Amino acid sequence: MTKNKIKSSSYLFPRPVVLIGANVNGKPNFEPLAYVSSVEDKPPLISIASYETHFTNIGIKQNGVFSVNTPSEEIIAGTDYCGIVSGKEADKSEVFDVFYGELKTAPMISKAPLNLECKVIKTLAIKELTGFEEGHELFIGEVVNAYAGEEYLTEGEPDISKLKTFTYSMKQYWKVGERVAKAWEIGKKYKKD
Amino acid sequence: MTKNKIKSSSYLFPRPVVLIGANVNGKPNFEPLAYVSSVEDKPPLISIASYETHFTNIGIKQNGVFSVNTPSEEIIAGTDYCGIVSGKEADKSEVFDVFYGELKTAPMISKAPLNLECKVIKTLAIKELTGFEEGHELFIGEVVNAYAGEEYLTEGEPDISKLKTFTYSMKQYWKVGERVAKAWEIGKKYKKD
Repeated sequence: MTKNKIKSSSYLFPRPVVLIGANVNGKPNFEPLAYVSSVEDKPPLISIASYETHFTNIGIKQNGVFSVNTPSEEIIAGTDYCGIVSGKEADKSEVFDVFYGELKTAPMISKAPLNLECKVIKTLAIKELTGFEEGHELFIGEVVNAYAGEEYLTEGEPDISKLKTFTYSMKQYWKVGERVAKAWEIGKKYKKD
Repeated sequence: MTKNKIKSSSYLFPRPVVLIGANVNGKPNFEPLAYVSSVEDKPPLISIASYETHFTNIGIKQNGVFSVNTPSEEIIAGTDYCGIVSGKEADKSEVFDVFYGELKTAPMISKAPLNLECKVIKTLAIKELTGFEEGHELFIGEVVNAYAGEEYLTEGEPDISKLKTFTYSMKQYWKVGERVAKAWEIGKKYKKD
């Protein structure tokens, strides 16, 4: 394979698409985000990177909590709408039916198959690392509670084949496809060429 | 939808699967990882979380660099093999044909469709946040260079429909599926129920 040097970017395939929820001045607001990752298992921690000027960041810092909501195709239009319109210009509190859990101020989307209720344990302004004038804020949150609809579970765990969620790439949303191999198994067949 | 409280975990769908490359004691080693995220665009930054006892971490700390390699189905067995076997027990330097770039010590996989050459700008031991005895190390790396095979590009950018990469979930690997909607478009059709 001939390798081409291409434009430097933090390409990742496939990325998750989630809706980050936060109450801003007491009202629910949601932002679709692909800059999200698990970072620890014990306790379960998740990181999100959201640009510092985004409306959602205000709410995360006001309450020290946020939610991570995995959308299904059923709410894809509402998900995309939340990415087109800023909470600074439009009231997004009416887009989704919302519920709250133990943390009281992390709004979660009832129709999303999966919701994580998170408490911020670390905030990092990326500009402090890069010296740039502006940048993303990295929030690391502890997953205090997780919620899912019964119909998306298999043996008590969210089942990727039932969620009907999607990935974002090239200004398009893409489905999750079929199974290709068993992990921790196909590798046993590995042979050096 | 009735919501069930389920086991707290940092569930994410779909996750990327990448192979992290690092030279350990001068020899290439690779670790498949799903705890990875873009965190900044200017400059392009990527974060990875790897458990502190993993062999790869030694190399990342020795050289201050790592690579992020996006696998295709063509190298799925080798990818999985690298997750089954630790570099502490097996020499993984022969699994893939390797090339190096500007940073000299970040080994990249020739057969992987996409390679990111990264320089560590921040290391965070998660246990310092949680108080646990052990944990993941979060490395934030600047993407100094990106490389891709010509056949995976469309207008100079990696094309998700050409990469044949996969996601990990429920001890299985899953393909990326068909397009479902245009982003920044389907949201214009959003109407409150």
